Amino acid sequence: MKVSLSLERSNSRDVAIMVDTLRASTTMTVALENFKKILPVKNIEEAEKLADKYNAVLAGERDGARVEGFDAGNSPVEIKNFKGEILVLTTTNGTRVLEGINSKTLVGSFINAKAVAEKAVEIADSHIEVVMAGVNGKFVIEDFLGAGAIISNLQDQELDEAAIAACMASHDKKMVNDAVKNSKSAAGLYKLGLGKDVEFCLNRNIYDTVPVYKNGTVEKML
Amino acid sequence: MKVSLSLERSNSRDVAIMVDTLRASTTMTVALENFKKILPVKNIEEAEKLADKYNAVLAGERDGARVEGFDAGNSPVEIKNFKGEILVLTTTNGTRVLEGINSKTLVGSFINAKAVAEKAVEIADSHIEVVMAGVNGKFVIEDFLGAGAIISNLQDQELDEAAIAACMASHDKKMVNDAVKNSKSAAGLYKLGLGKDVEFCLNRNIYDTVPVYKNGTVEKML
Repeated sequence: MKVSLSLERSNSRDVAIMVDTLRASTTMTVALENFKKILPVKNIEEAEKLADKYNAVLAGERDGARVEGFDAGNSPVEIKNFKGEILVLTTTNGTRVLEGINSKTLVGSFINAKAVAEKAVEIADSHIEVVMAGVNGKFVIEDFLGAGAIISNLQDQELDEAAIAACMASHDKKMVNDAVKNSKSAAGLYKLGLGKDVEFCLNRNIYDTVPVYKNGTVEKML
Repeated sequence: MKVSLSLERSNSRDVAIMVDTLRASTTMTVALENFKKILPVKNIEEAEKLADKYNAVLAGERDGARVEGFDAGNSPVEIKNFKGEILVLTTTNGTRVLEGINSKTLVGSFINAKAVAEKAVEIADSHIEVVMAGVNGKFVIEDFLGAGAIISNLQDQELDEAAIAACMASHDKKMVNDAVKNSKSAAGLYKLGLGKDVEFCLNRNIYDTVPVYKNGTVEKML
């Protein structure tokens, strides 16, 4: 099984794992404990329409902050307090990246790294592509290290050199935590008083939930 | 001082450090012990013409192997046996990348990591860009780790997140050596019987020489 690492775009026709560590991947994984489905959408108006239509909980962020009038932000800590059939979620990068992937797409982060890696091996034919969401198409360290945490569970496979690099950088847990906490993305969240989200996103393997994106919907992979 | 890491292309108008670990950066650094100037050129015909014109030593590779009729390959181990005024050197990636950089350009690798980092700080105004040569525009691990070895000497500066990632991956010397020896580029060199070059390129800080590229010529930075 080949395992490759890429930024934002995916060439895989087999299985991809989308990594948006802070926070879309983490929020989706947590939300599937209390919701049957997540509808990730790009824009606020569409999110509001869908939430009305399905009487759904409405969550999402712009520049990290909860959208005004929404029930929750794109926050794994906040989302735990909500429950329902459907969650409508709008985020800046994660959603756009999900929509750009053409293969079976799983959602991964530190909190479900082992589970998502194992599920990917189970369902892939020959190629798992780990896709860092990044921010506006740019490399961000929290997605590189989140990818590394996932790939560390795939070391028996044929890793490409970017995947090996991510694994190497993820080796020391304290260094990883420091780097994520000192990232630009985390700085933005701390500034908004959302430091608890950063801390939460750094928990390792506390969920076995593997979100899968298909036809515009994210559900728990069974 | 900002320090950023990029692949192949440089946006810097200040100082760049080109990293082609296996082997152009290493060969150039070694060669400047015995030569006053290196003329890096892209194609074989031009290299032959220049060598004739200047009565120069002629070195270079295609697909890792010494070009037929040339005095030496792009080999730090071989090049030590030659001496002269001018070395004409043709390599696949390093030369192309050097020509694409518009700022003051230094040449770095494991063997002069500390020296090139210090020289860059000395001559830059505000921005050092470390440029991985890669192979045909693609990420290769030996350049990422070579970059990390250089950037490890710049940790007091403002590193961008890719630079921090390279630093983190370069943390453990044994892991770095293993990763470089297991790289695709190294595999090609071992296959050609050039394993000694791989070993040599992994020596840390054995040279204080800092090659600088200017107007098509590489010289020792004084």
